[in-house]
Amino acid sequence: MPKAKSSLKIAIAGLGVVGAEVARQVINRGDELDIATGKQMKVVAVSARDRSVDRNVNLNGIDWYDEPSQLAERDDVDIIVEMVGGSEGVALDLARAALGSGKHVVTANKAMIAHHGTELAQLAEANHAHLMFEAAVAGGIPALKTLREGLAGNKITRVAGILNGTCNYILSIMETTGRDFDDVLADAQRLGYAEAEPSFDVDGIDAAHKLTILAAIAFGHQPDFKAVSIQGIRNVSSVDFAYANQLGFRIKLVGVAEPGLMPRMQTCLLPLGSQLANVNGVLNAVEFHGELVGSVLAVGPGAGGGATSSAVLSDLIDIAAGRGGLPFGQSINTLVNASAIKNGAGPDKPFYVRLTVVDQPGVLATLTGILQKHTISIEGLLQQGRAPGNAVALVMTTHETSVTNLTRALDEMEKLPIVKAKPVAMPILLAEKEA
Amino acid sequence: MPKAKSSLKIAIAGLGVVGAEVARQVINRGDELDIATGKQMKVVAVSARDRSVDRNVNLNGIDWYDEPSQLAERDDVDIIVEMVGGSEGVALDLARAALGSGKHVVTANKAMIAHHGTELAQLAEANHAHLMFEAAVAGGIPALKTLREGLAGNKITRVAGILNGTCNYILSIMETTGRDFDDVLADAQRLGYAEAEPSFDVDGIDAAHKLTILAAIAFGHQPDFKAVSIQGIRNVSSVDFAYANQLGFRIKLVGVAEPGLMPRMQTCLLPLGSQLANVNGVLNAVEFHGELVGSVLAVGPGAGGGATSSAVLSDLIDIAAGRGGLPFGQSINTLVNASAIKNGAGPDKPFYVRLTVVDQPGVLATLTGILQKHTISIEGLLQQGRAPGNAVALVMTTHETSVTNLTRALDEMEKLPIVKAKPVAMPILLAEKEA
Repeated sequence: MPKAKSSLKIAIAGLGVVGAEVARQVINRGDELDIATGKQMKVVAVSARDRSVDRNVNLNGIDWYDEPSQLAERDDVDIIVEMVGGSEGVALDLARAALGSGKHVVTANKAMIAHHGTELAQLAEANHAHLMFEAAVAGGIPALKTLREGLAGNKITRVAGILNGTCNYILSIMETTGRDFDDVLADAQRLGYAEAEPSFDVDGIDAAHKLTILAAIAFGHQPDFKAVSIQGIRNVSSVDFAYANQLGFRIKLVGVAEPGLMPRMQTCLLPLGSQLANVNGVLNAVEFHGELVGSVLAVGPGAGGGATSSAVLSDLIDIAAGRGGLPFGQSINTLVNASAIKNGAGPDKPFYVRLTVVDQPGVLATLTGILQKHTISIEGLLQQGRAPGNAVALVMTTHETSVTNLTRALDEMEKLPIVKAKPVAMPILLAEKEA
Repeated sequence: MPKAKSSLKIAIAGLGVVGAEVARQVINRGDELDIATGKQMKVVAVSARDRSVDRNVNLNGIDWYDEPSQLAERDDVDIIVEMVGGSEGVALDLARAALGSGKHVVTANKAMIAHHGTELAQLAEANHAHLMFEAAVAGGIPALKTLREGLAGNKITRVAGILNGTCNYILSIMETTGRDFDDVLADAQRLGYAEAEPSFDVDGIDAAHKLTILAAIAFGHQPDFKAVSIQGIRNVSSVDFAYANQLGFRIKLVGVAEPGLMPRMQTCLLPLGSQLANVNGVLNAVEFHGELVGSVLAVGPGAGGGATSSAVLSDLIDIAAGRGGLPFGQSINTLVNASAIKNGAGPDKPFYVRLTVVDQPGVLATLTGILQKHTISIEGLLQQGRAPGNAVALVMTTHETSVTNLTRALDEMEKLPIVKAKPVAMPILLAEKEA
């Protein structure tokens, strides 16, 4: 690592909500922050397209550049704060140039780390620079620090997280109001909780970026976005919330990473009494399971200028205090290639299944016969309302079974004339010790 | 800080549950742990009274000492893990000797840090040694790391924690069963959740040690146990749980620290929907409020060999990885003297009040008259059951008021012939933004 300096010169690329907040904090609260590091942090350069915006911070005496890449060319800059965004292009070019010239990089760019984390960490290590991205995962929750440092003595057995506030908000509202996905999404867009183009959030991509990073740190393999199984929340029906509730569960989009298995973003059922089930609205949460510690849960704001800049500042302070460390908690050369991760659905687990069937005698016997044939046993059953000869919902929870067996059974059921719609199935995520 | 070595020699004083677990982990999982630090951690010496106990770890080749103090005399030892316990005596002598000779000290000893943290941190800094005590607060939750590093960019506005699993367990059981304190305590003792001499836990002393440490880190003042206001749970009546519930609250022992105010351990009411209110049983939890981040909650096991050694190992790994840093997050010379802390009850807050009054006409008018005289206004009122001429409970919640005003009003009420018992009052802890 470079020799400690008495002052640390920072360049910020991108002065959006987060970039401007970071600038404000370092410029206005410099003395306070310096006390934690014994060094002086100083913003010396910024880059943003529009110089005329009022960012509520005095940038007099700070050099402006039109091109972020120019920041990496300044020899006197120690740290580049990359707030441009996007997995490729300007952000990636800047990160490569900065690390390549031995400058530290602090970023909130989950997409870039999920896609290019291995290359960038290699570049950082080769050039004795720090690459820090606490703000990339779960916003203001120090999730990466907790995992990489706070629980470093543990063999991690599972990381499970609610990693996208937009999805969690939509699911929470669907549950409490009984309204449909499209309807709630439109509202969320009006309220600014969802983007006009919501795909990044509701299709699970943003959360999968975060899960990629968590899994890499937890299990010591290279971050590899392609090795994550991704499911979003578009296909969740409002009826399932009420059924799940009656059976003692709540529906959430949860990212789960377990040793040696493909990390997965999945819409699943959580027991109502579980910690993650009670994280509602736009909050994020990460539950860490370790062999020594058992389980530690962290809950907090997953987005927003304040929360994100809190994480960026903690990275800056870590670097200034000489605590920068290695981005994935160990040398990049010791990370296992992601091809070692099994492409599969993981161990057997219980499932929630909703069937739309004709209400007539013998239906239950036929269906349970198929389950039995595929060695699936029923744990709970819910049938409400009678409509002889018409379609009704038949909801059940199964004991632990494999995805393969379940898929075969559901495929077989779907072909029956008494089954009137494609069966709906979601895994149930039990507390680790029960799983 | 001392120059990095390729190996790090550890001596463990005390081989109880935690000490033995730490030894097991370092000895049996050395290679795994070394990957996180690039160094080799090696247990070279231990001290424990009884050599004959089977500790389920191979200590062959490790030097044994009868006196912990002998560990500090060994020139080759880099880190002393102090697991002896107690605020004075052997533990303190060992910590002083170790730090004085430039050895790092890792400890779970909350009492010692709460009482002697300033002196020990001074000694550490003067001798370029690390003093680490993550395990001293909230067991396996990396609470100190979260506060000192993860949220380092924030001006902290409040830290509130459930810091004693025994108390939280007893209160949870009292609430769910309606049983009395003595009865539930006896059960907890039988189950091993409470000590035979329970005072340290149930009188709030253990939790106050932890709160002392949290407050020092959060607000940059010297740890000073004497500057903490301490209340335990012995005086909580089982009837109050049901009343609190009906009014939308749950009773918890919570440690609260706010800038410039005396930290306080208090039995208080939390809104049922709040995060801390839902931390039940032996769990610990800490809620951090920062100006940037808003609120971050961490929940986990507050005690036990696994959880505590998880925290000890994280300290060892931090030292090995060069991340040891300063124990209170800033140089000891920059910490404000605790005399700067105001000895007071803090800002006005709402209260829960339970009065035992004679059920007769005019009582409510008399009591509300007294409240009005002391400028206290009622927020909610609960009177159940009728017993004309006999004593009944009258329960109310007030709007924000000062402790002084409330005390005066209650003193005046207590003197009335219609008031049949000493009034019970507990503060209500609202979410920070509402307070």
